[in-house]
Amino acid sequence: MDRLFWIGLVGAAVALLFAWLQSNRVRAFSEGNDTMKKIAAAIRQGANAYLKHQYATVSKVFFVVFLILLALARFHMLDNWFIPFAFLTGGIYSALAGFVGMKIATSANARTAQAASESLNKGLNVAFSSGAVMGFTVVGLGLLDISVWFHILKYVAHYDAAKIAQTMVMFGMGASFMALFARVGGGIFTKAADVGADLVGKVEAGIPEDDPRNPATIADNVGDNVGDVAGMGADLYESYVGSILATFALGVAAYPGSSWEAMLLPIALAVVGILCSIFGSFLIRTKEGASQRELLGTLRKGTYTAAVLAAVIAAPLTYFILGSWGVYIAILCGLIGGCAIGYFTEYYTSDTYKPTQGLADSTETGAATTIIGGLSLGMLSTIAPILIVGAAVIISFLAAGGSLTTSAENYTELFSKGLYGIGIAAVGMLSTLGITLATDAYGPVADNAGGIAEMSGLGDEVRERTDALDSLGNTTAATGKGFAIGSAALTALALLVSYVDIVKAKMDYAPDLSLTNPAVLVGLFIGAMLTFVFAALTMSAVQRAAQSIVVEVRRQFREIAGIMEGTTDPDYASCVGLCTKGALREMVKPSLLAIIVPIFTGLILSVEGVVGLLGGVSVSGFAVAVFMSNAGGAWDNAKKYIESGHHGGKGSEQHKAAVIGDTVGDPFKDTSGPSLNILIKLVSTVSIVFSGLIVNFHLL
Amino acid sequence: MDRLFWIGLVGAAVALLFAWLQSNRVRAFSEGNDTMKKIAAAIRQGANAYLKHQYATVSKVFFVVFLILLALARFHMLDNWFIPFAFLTGGIYSALAGFVGMKIATSANARTAQAASESLNKGLNVAFSSGAVMGFTVVGLGLLDISVWFHILKYVAHYDAAKIAQTMVMFGMGASFMALFARVGGGIFTKAADVGADLVGKVEAGIPEDDPRNPATIADNVGDNVGDVAGMGADLYESYVGSILATFALGVAAYPGSSWEAMLLPIALAVVGILCSIFGSFLIRTKEGASQRELLGTLRKGTYTAAVLAAVIAAPLTYFILGSWGVYIAILCGLIGGCAIGYFTEYYTSDTYKPTQGLADSTETGAATTIIGGLSLGMLSTIAPILIVGAAVIISFLAAGGSLTTSAENYTELFSKGLYGIGIAAVGMLSTLGITLATDAYGPVADNAGGIAEMSGLGDEVRERTDALDSLGNTTAATGKGFAIGSAALTALALLVSYVDIVKAKMDYAPDLSLTNPAVLVGLFIGAMLTFVFAALTMSAVQRAAQSIVVEVRRQFREIAGIMEGTTDPDYASCVGLCTKGALREMVKPSLLAIIVPIFTGLILSVEGVVGLLGGVSVSGFAVAVFMSNAGGAWDNAKKYIESGHHGGKGSEQHKAAVIGDTVGDPFKDTSGPSLNILIKLVSTVSIVFSGLIVNFHLL
Repeated sequence: MDRLFWIGLVGAAVALLFAWLQSNRVRAFSEGNDTMKKIAAAIRQGANAYLKHQYATVSKVFFVVFLILLALARFHMLDNWFIPFAFLTGGIYSALAGFVGMKIATSANARTAQAASESLNKGLNVAFSSGAVMGFTVVGLGLLDISVWFHILKYVAHYDAAKIAQTMVMFGMGASFMALFARVGGGIFTKAADVGADLVGKVEAGIPEDDPRNPATIADNVGDNVGDVAGMGADLYESYVGSILATFALGVAAYPGSSWEAMLLPIALAVVGILCSIFGSFLIRTKEGASQRELLGTLRKGTYTAAVLAAVIAAPLTYFILGSWGVYIAILCGLIGGCAIGYFTEYYTSDTYKPTQGLADSTETGAATTIIGGLSLGMLSTIAPILIVGAAVIISFLAAGGSLTTSAENYTELFSKGLYGIGIAAVGMLSTLGITLATDAYGPVADNAGGIAEMSGLGDEVRERTDALDSLGNTTAATGKGFAIGSAALTALALLVSYVDIVKAKMDYAPDLSLTNPAVLVGLFIGAMLTFVFAALTMSAVQRAAQSIVVEVRRQFREIAGIMEGTTDPDYASCVGLCTKGALREMVKPSLLAIIVPIFTGLILSVEGVVGLLGGVSVSGFAVAVFMSNAGGAWDNAKKYIESGHHGGKGSEQHKAAVIGDTVGDPFKDTSGPSLNILIKLVSTVSIVFSGLIVNFHLL
Repeated sequence: MDRLFWIGLVGAAVALLFAWLQSNRVRAFSEGNDTMKKIAAAIRQGANAYLKHQYATVSKVFFVVFLILLALARFHMLDNWFIPFAFLTGGIYSALAGFVGMKIATSANARTAQAASESLNKGLNVAFSSGAVMGFTVVGLGLLDISVWFHILKYVAHYDAAKIAQTMVMFGMGASFMALFARVGGGIFTKAADVGADLVGKVEAGIPEDDPRNPATIADNVGDNVGDVAGMGADLYESYVGSILATFALGVAAYPGSSWEAMLLPIALAVVGILCSIFGSFLIRTKEGASQRELLGTLRKGTYTAAVLAAVIAAPLTYFILGSWGVYIAILCGLIGGCAIGYFTEYYTSDTYKPTQGLADSTETGAATTIIGGLSLGMLSTIAPILIVGAAVIISFLAAGGSLTTSAENYTELFSKGLYGIGIAAVGMLSTLGITLATDAYGPVADNAGGIAEMSGLGDEVRERTDALDSLGNTTAATGKGFAIGSAALTALALLVSYVDIVKAKMDYAPDLSLTNPAVLVGLFIGAMLTFVFAALTMSAVQRAAQSIVVEVRRQFREIAGIMEGTTDPDYASCVGLCTKGALREMVKPSLLAIIVPIFTGLILSVEGVVGLLGGVSVSGFAVAVFMSNAGGAWDNAKKYIESGHHGGKGSEQHKAAVIGDTVGDPFKDTSGPSLNILIKLVSTVSIVFSGLIVNFHLL
């Protein structure tokens, strides 16, 4: 079946074509009146400026790493000369996906507000379509990158299946790097602006959210785009590409006799997922005056239909390609697991359920109990995702043919088959990413639309509609975060096991990777430490960057006459500039740490230590990411719940306590938590690429 | 050398004798005036009542588990009939140590206050002597329990070395169980009382700390004794016994030819540690008007001298017993590691260093930044302890003869020797526990003395002296916590590797314990989850228990006339009763969880899953324990730093923010953090005892 891989190119083309059509659809709408156009232009300009600076900084890092990779290739510590170039394309494609998504999001925000002034359904459609542009661009470019390289290696370099797989698993690092900077930088930008705007505008000056008199309000809206759109896109781009490439490597190890087939399956699955996602996205429409439940229902109808459809088609497909029902069960595990994690994330963070309502209760006794309540809630919320991922791992491993009994005759062979199951489960979870990401990237657009409606003084009816769309966006954002973390964990495990496959082939002895090996144990400890240090650095980075915004906003209120009266515009651009500078300055330290620690661990503790590190980061990183994201989400929604009239409502002591919780939660849920998703994948991809160096270093 | 084990009995006798002498020395002092006697009696009564209730509850659990163990023995799923009885003695000895420590602490508090009214040196001496009673009772009873069982197994049951070691490693579970309940229950009691007293007394009614008008003030003082004395004692009792027993097991595996020698070394080391600790404790004295630095210096002189002396004597001792300088280096790793962790704990939590001062700075921008600052500080503070433990593990493994290169000819044999190094490093770290624990248990006594001085209206000069002693106690308490966590981690690793030795002997196939095994991976995830859930449950338990105190104190202020005027005594006993009830009610859920999860993981995922679980709990538990303890300690000291006149001092907005941080930090540092120490050891001891059940279950 080695001639069927063109379907990847076709699938990529279909996804990109669909994204282009959706983009045209969005652009056909009007941007509204002059005020709206002006605001939208300011946001667009700020987002463009940030991305430009970010890409400039990142390209320097890429250039340095590119040279290092060339040097490694020269000294035969890389498998071949393709890797440095694939590193570049991975980064460029990921950046391109982020850029396109951000571009459409910043041109859809005013259009969504304008469309919402006509009807709720039109507003939903514009926002969702712009989300779809992002979603399908990510999957389209991801599949394109993989397919193009595949064809180059197969038809230009004439590699066989095993060599293609082992080479291509090294190609994920470019996307990892890009994702790291996008998530960390974007996360710092968005929260610095948000916290800065709130602390001075809402708390000190007492003006409402999104008020045009607040100098940081444009920066806040820019932040939604660079953090929640571009950052989230790069994160899932990496998971998407990483899971497919890891499954390639696991496939050739598991099916030496039918490697092409084992490699074709993830590609075919991705193509099926794209088609099902397109189908699902046609189902998303709503009627006037729809309730939150109905709005959420229509998005769910779209995503669940796509997932069910993909599950149905995957059955004959898997059987046709690999002749194995067990592998099909593994795919199902991924699809179901993804939905289940999303559901539980919603349960823990939405104010329609008990946990967040209980958190709102704890504001009755002050800020301290609110903090303790949120921290406990976040920690408890790790149960469901961990049990779900755990069950998905075990079931997909066993179903795909793996055995846990070492006494089985062909244990090693069966074991490889099982590991392929884990990889394909990750691919299954991510197969309908097109539509999942669309519902997710929809959120910030709706959020921006609400801001623009407020700032340009559109009528109450329009505000009501944009509020409804925004509120829906908050829910999908939470669910999306859960999905992003779950898929990152599964992808990280797939990368971990493929790392072991790769190094074993390079080494002249079989490494002892058992947990009793002190090098593995110490690696585990370092992994946990890296997680905590990375979380701490990103958290405090937000604090420092926000501080500069606070100072600047206070200065403007003091020095620029007429801001509070609304007669003079504040200097929006300076806040955007400060956020940009702050984010770029602060993203370097944690990012470099994430890159350096796996290399140093390898140099000191060799392969065994690296395996421990990967395990430690995956496990601690997953738990801490879930804890931080869910605690942050719950604080946010507990505050909104109080604002909607419970526990004394806005301005009460309880509300003040809730605001403190929300402020702590901001970097939790939008900076540190999501950045950990990247960390757990990045340490694997870095370790994979530098495995040649590590093995050679220790052979010296 | 199998006839030299009597030195263990001698060492135990010397330790207990020294404890008795110190106890007499304390009792020779006067308890002061009638008010002081009355207050001391109330505290004593409350602490006794709590311990009585706690032991009553715990004995029920012990009885049920005892029956289960008997049943397991009956169906040949336990190695022998001794285990159920050793389970009981372990629990009883640990409880006894806690009881003695608490008893002396509650009779030394008023005496310390009275002695301080004579001179600072006398006050220090009484408080330290009472700490020494606790310290030496713990090591004395621990060594006695081990030595008595050793002689029974050797001379009554006529076991050989291997069988003694493999049997006795199962004997740690009783101490683990007792420690769990003591730490969790005591931790909940002490913080419920503290938070309850502060929230209503200090914040609402505006009366100072330890004011006799506060109905919860006696409960607060009782809490110091049951949490910080009895709880801490049981924790370290478990580490002490656990590390020696694990080293027994590792010793017979590593030195099949000289098993008696390998087992004698940890015993001899413990005896040497006791003698050196006694010597060190004679060095502790101070002069009038000594500064904090000088006071800390004298305690340091005692502990460091004991450690250096032990290091010197250990050299010929190790060479004489085992003929190995490498094993001696392992012991040094433990001794140095323990001191280093203590130092870094102080660095991160004392207000004389930058981190805590920086945290105080972050109160300038409100409660939210104070919380984020403390959380970041706690997370960053994991670096040093993890690198220290990591280095200690690797160096002691390699020094003791271990090899990380699987291609080495006699890899397995060398590997066992290396693991013995890890075990002996843990024993080394704990060898001078007598004096380390003395400086640690000194803290709550000084704290109580300060409270009694305040409540009985002793003069300013006396308050100044007790304040100095109290402040010193806070520092040693923080250092002690760091030491407790570090030794728990090393003990847990030693238990983990001995668990693997034990199950391998029971199984009819070699389990695949490598990190790529999905069962191991999922076990790791469950371990991380258990850590977070356990931390969340203990944290929220404090919150619920404190709530009932708040309600009660408010009621008393409202209903009992004359409290605020000082004409009527409040009802102290009802607060003590509520704390007792709350602690006993709340300790059950997290404790059962800690016991059940390892068994269920074993039943579902077999031995491989359990090994993953142990790794996951050790790693995550260690990181989270350090994070929580240090964050809590830093918040506490940042508040005190502000109270001493920085950042606006008492009553300022900054102070309010610091109080919120401190209130969040209370359950962090005194309940959840220390309870995690127990968790990481308990899952190992439970898994070891139930290994027969797990292996047999999966053989069915």
